[in-house]
Amino acid sequence: MFHLRCYSTLKRKTIGFIGLGQMGYPMASNLIKKFQPEGFIVHDYNKNQALNFQKEHKEAQVVDSPLEVAKRCQVIITMLPTGKHVRSVYTGENGLLQGLQPGSLVLDSSTIEPTTSKDLSSILKGKDVNMLDTPVSGGTLGAQAGTLTFMVGADSPELFEKSKEVLQHMGKNLVFCGTVGNGQIAKICNNMMLGISMIAASETMNLGVQMGMDPKLLAGILNTSTGRCWSTEVYNPCPGVLPNVPSSRGYTGGFGVSLMAKDMGLAVNIADQSKAPVTLGAVAHQIFNKVMTTKGYEDKDFSSVYKWLNSK
Amino acid sequence: MFHLRCYSTLKRKTIGFIGLGQMGYPMASNLIKKFQPEGFIVHDYNKNQALNFQKEHKEAQVVDSPLEVAKRCQVIITMLPTGKHVRSVYTGENGLLQGLQPGSLVLDSSTIEPTTSKDLSSILKGKDVNMLDTPVSGGTLGAQAGTLTFMVGADSPELFEKSKEVLQHMGKNLVFCGTVGNGQIAKICNNMMLGISMIAASETMNLGVQMGMDPKLLAGILNTSTGRCWSTEVYNPCPGVLPNVPSSRGYTGGFGVSLMAKDMGLAVNIADQSKAPVTLGAVAHQIFNKVMTTKGYEDKDFSSVYKWLNSK
Amino acid sequence: MFHLRCYSTLKRKTIGFIGLGQMGYPMASNLIKKFQPEGFIVHDYNKNQALNFQKEHKEAQVVDSPLEVAKRCQVIITMLPTGKHVRSVYTGENGLLQGLQPGSLVLDSSTIEPTTSKDLSSILKGKDVNMLDTPVSGGTLGAQAGTLTFMVGADSPELFEKSKEVLQHMGKNLVFCGTVGNGQIAKICNNMMLGISMIAASETMNLGVQMGMDPKLLAGILNTSTGRCWSTEVYNPCPGVLPNVPSSRGYTGGFGVSLMAKDMGLAVNIADQSKAPVTLGAVAHQIFNKVMTTKGYEDKDFSSVYKWLNSK
Amino acid sequence: MFHLRCYSTLKRKTIGFIGLGQMGYPMASNLIKKFQPEGFIVHDYNKNQALNFQKEHKEAQVVDSPLEVAKRCQVIITMLPTGKHVRSVYTGENGLLQGLQPGSLVLDSSTIEPTTSKDLSSILKGKDVNMLDTPVSGGTLGAQAGTLTFMVGADSPELFEKSKEVLQHMGKNLVFCGTVGNGQIAKICNNMMLGISMIAASETMNLGVQMGMDPKLLAGILNTSTGRCWSTEVYNPCPGVLPNVPSSRGYTGGFGVSLMAKDMGLAVNIADQSKAPVTLGAVAHQIFNKVMTTKGYEDKDFSSVYKWLNSK
Repeated sequence: MFHLRCYSTLKRKTIGFIGLGQMGYPMASNLIKKFQPEGFIVHDYNKNQALNFQKEHKEAQVVDSPLEVAKRCQVIITMLPTGKHVRSVYTGENGLLQGLQPGSLVLDSSTIEPTTSKDLSSILKGKDVNMLDTPVSGGTLGAQAGTLTFMVGADSPELFEKSKEVLQHMGKNLVFCGTVGNGQIAKICNNMMLGISMIAASETMNLGVQMGMDPKLLAGILNTSTGRCWSTEVYNPCPGVLPNVPSSRGYTGGFGVSLMAKDMGLAVNIADQSKAPVTLGAVAHQIFNKVMTTKGYEDKDFSSVYKWLNSK
Repeated sequence: MFHLRCYSTLKRKTIGFIGLGQMGYPMASNLIKKFQPEGFIVHDYNKNQALNFQKEHKEAQVVDSPLEVAKRCQVIITMLPTGKHVRSVYTGENGLLQGLQPGSLVLDSSTIEPTTSKDLSSILKGKDVNMLDTPVSGGTLGAQAGTLTFMVGADSPELFEKSKEVLQHMGKNLVFCGTVGNGQIAKICNNMMLGISMIAASETMNLGVQMGMDPKLLAGILNTSTGRCWSTEVYNPCPGVLPNVPSSRGYTGGFGVSLMAKDMGLAVNIADQSKAPVTLGAVAHQIFNKVMTTKGYEDKDFSSVYKWLNSK
Repeated sequence: MFHLRCYSTLKRKTIGFIGLGQMGYPMASNLIKKFQPEGFIVHDYNKNQALNFQKEHKEAQVVDSPLEVAKRCQVIITMLPTGKHVRSVYTGENGLLQGLQPGSLVLDSSTIEPTTSKDLSSILKGKDVNMLDTPVSGGTLGAQAGTLTFMVGADSPELFEKSKEVLQHMGKNLVFCGTVGNGQIAKICNNMMLGISMIAASETMNLGVQMGMDPKLLAGILNTSTGRCWSTEVYNPCPGVLPNVPSSRGYTGGFGVSLMAKDMGLAVNIADQSKAPVTLGAVAHQIFNKVMTTKGYEDKDFSSVYKWLNSK
Repeated sequence: MFHLRCYSTLKRKTIGFIGLGQMGYPMASNLIKKFQPEGFIVHDYNKNQALNFQKEHKEAQVVDSPLEVAKRCQVIITMLPTGKHVRSVYTGENGLLQGLQPGSLVLDSSTIEPTTSKDLSSILKGKDVNMLDTPVSGGTLGAQAGTLTFMVGADSPELFEKSKEVLQHMGKNLVFCGTVGNGQIAKICNNMMLGISMIAASETMNLGVQMGMDPKLLAGILNTSTGRCWSTEVYNPCPGVLPNVPSSRGYTGGFGVSLMAKDMGLAVNIADQSKAPVTLGAVAHQIFNKVMTTKGYEDKDFSSVYKWLNSK
């Protein structure tokens, strides 16, 4: 999907990684193994998590704050759960902002409000630091396998090219989405579309099955017709239609319903800012919120909405 | 997609065709040209429509009621706008029921409630007549080109095979959906999925564009990711993303928003019968009802919901 | 609410009553006790139900079909569960239509599609019979106490006056809604408004309580402000706010969630006919359909949607 | 509704007022006229607005920042459009926080996220300052007439009593809602209920009218039955049903649709935090967002949703 320039300007830099959660940990593991930077500094709010990482990767060093990461690294990746965490890591006490070196490159792979990405990028530019938003799709399996898709918002194609030198070690598809914030917008738009499609596929499959149709037959008809979508073809929510998808193993693994609910919430929020009507998006958001708080669904894949629909 | 038996048992029969509207007329035209049956009897509520057909196809004969069609034909196709019309043509005064000959084959290509299909099929069976539901997708263009998809509900594979001898001259894909009524269910399920997807694609594309993304770039990202569906890939509702689709020619041609509204209404109704929740389906139904009654959208393609969303 | 004419033209007539279910039985009981007509003929699809009625009311006579009711009575009340039942009783085999005497008065208290009321009224007019739609609100308790509200559609104020002579013995409020069918429309409109309000009250009370507010305090604020409605003031769905309402006794008694679901379905259907958008109505319909099929809610009052919202 | 203590401890204090917009200006006018405090300091982001106030009220003094207000006043009222503005006024550069005197009382009448109220109150407590959330209902007319309702969140009944000495001059009903943040929750809950009810009333009235009912008759039936709510009884959205309401004067005056859209957005956001499902609330939010961006509705009363529903 892309061609690397032959030289690597970032190779000799020290890399910092903040946020070693379910996604960040395997991403950082791939990065340190494949990129083999001169130095690799890690930080997590939960220090034990960082120490565990160091146990596995001896060359990594643990520090106690984003500030210390900023002081010691010229390339920094952050992977955090919400916009609130991102703001705290960047502009809070002992945050990155207080220590960043001019000319540094900061990549935020968290999925957050695009306005936060834009605001922080603008603040960092005042310190001569380029910040790109680089949210991912592909889940924890993609993070482990290094096959994530990165949706990159950058102020120039050159900065996108530069980011690839790092991101390629964690992902397979690197997509340039335009200016800073656009990575978030692309990610959020895709996931809103996905969330609605999954509920639509669930309503449709459930309706057909309740009316007496064979699920595989129905899926086959949809998939050769105008009703087909990723959720019917690749990730069908009805058990038994496809092998090796969450619906065929009790909705375990996959993309958690609460993560989908969070992304739908972001979609509804940015839609509110621009007054773009997202009625189906808003209803889908409420449905995922209801499913994720229903006993037995808390840790399930988001396709479990199919089961929720027909559970008595 | 299917193999014909070498002999044609229906060839020597007289064919009847009832309902020569926007879909029925070109379907009947293809049938009479390609099948060249021994006799071809047509009827339409609007007699002029039938006379026009006869003008174009000299070998066709016009009769004044479904009853007369039934008396003279052993194979009958009906293509009518709603379940009410179907019930009237079959069981009303001077209806088919009063004249059908034992051993006849009746194919109803209307899109109606599956329960009506089942009821009528059951009544006709009492007269030793097999009735199949054979609704279509593909629109008027598909009807003219003879490339429709037929979704066939039949009580046995043999009856499905038999129906192919006729249907193959009007369509390209003939799909066996199981027992009588299942053709309708498959059609309605597909179109519910399509209707929701189209609004979802419209909300998503509109949201991204309002937030400043390039529409083609956004469509490209969706189409290589988990948000892809027929409505984003093949029929994108945002003008300029794809050539030769309704959105790129002022939403003319295509599948009318009022037809989609009708099919969504059928979906919500059958879901109510089985108490299968279709919350997104119900909201999509309301949105199409609102769009179709908005000035300037009455005759537009159903993808015009994109324009409706961002019209001020 | 109304003044009776001094004479009673209907007193000397024989009354027929068809449909002795949960509503019809107590309505008929009140009528026979209070009106004391010259004759009282009853019929129910389930003959045992009619025999039970006769056991309690010796002066009643049981007949085997609507036809026999029609032959023997000049005033007939019908109280049936759905439009399908009504059509069957009126125009089916051994139905009313075949035996009605010119000059008879027929009152249909079933809640059904207004178009069915209009159609039947028009058919009966051809036999010189006046049919009024007289759906009720007030539930089984109101039926027993004789305090129902009747919403009456009649072609003239005189016919409304005439109907009062009978209806006053079963209800307290008799409301003239205009032409035939308008009784249904008024009933359905009111219940759609009620259904949406109840879910809105449930969402609102649940939101406030989840955020930490005292339910009684919150209800008090709503009820003295612009958020007040019958569902917050008289029938609050949050347990403990009001005594003697279903929510304070485990959601028993009251108006069943499946009955509300049925009425919402009627509302969505008539809205579809006139293309009047009812987006909230459609969503409310789906929610009641989901609640009524959830284990433990099948027989509960419709205010149990509050419990469903916060059940884990 | 409440009894004042005989002495007024706040009378001798200097009062500060920040935010002289459509609501704040008339509120401050009432306060300065009726309370006649020793000193009255005003500030607005738009200095001209403050100077206009001073022109009308000679005893008022204008200052250039919230900080200066804080330095000179012991009782401060803020009335600002959004949470972002409130955070900026309190904790931004030259904000209140930098200058507040221990023992001061701060009343925020803005309608914002309850979490922001709680956060700020907690921060101010660290400076020995009590902050209460005191959002209002009643609109600009209520602000002018001094008849607003204040929903007060305070950490003790004593603080609520103290706040009354000030608030009574701007409002008629002062309601104690419990701890800090609860004023916001009560306000938001009420307005979510109101917003849903208004759309429900509009869908219902429109459905009935489209089906041929007289609007006054239908409103009368609803208002004596279970469908009644403030929106049908006091503020009916159908033109001609009630005199002296926005619907009967082209939807002018009243409570702007964009203000309702904003409050629905707050409701959906706090519901998301507590995962309380608000499906009807979310749909209502989207509908108001659509209406407020439709040409001709930007400045209309929120009951104009009725007109939007049936506009072609």
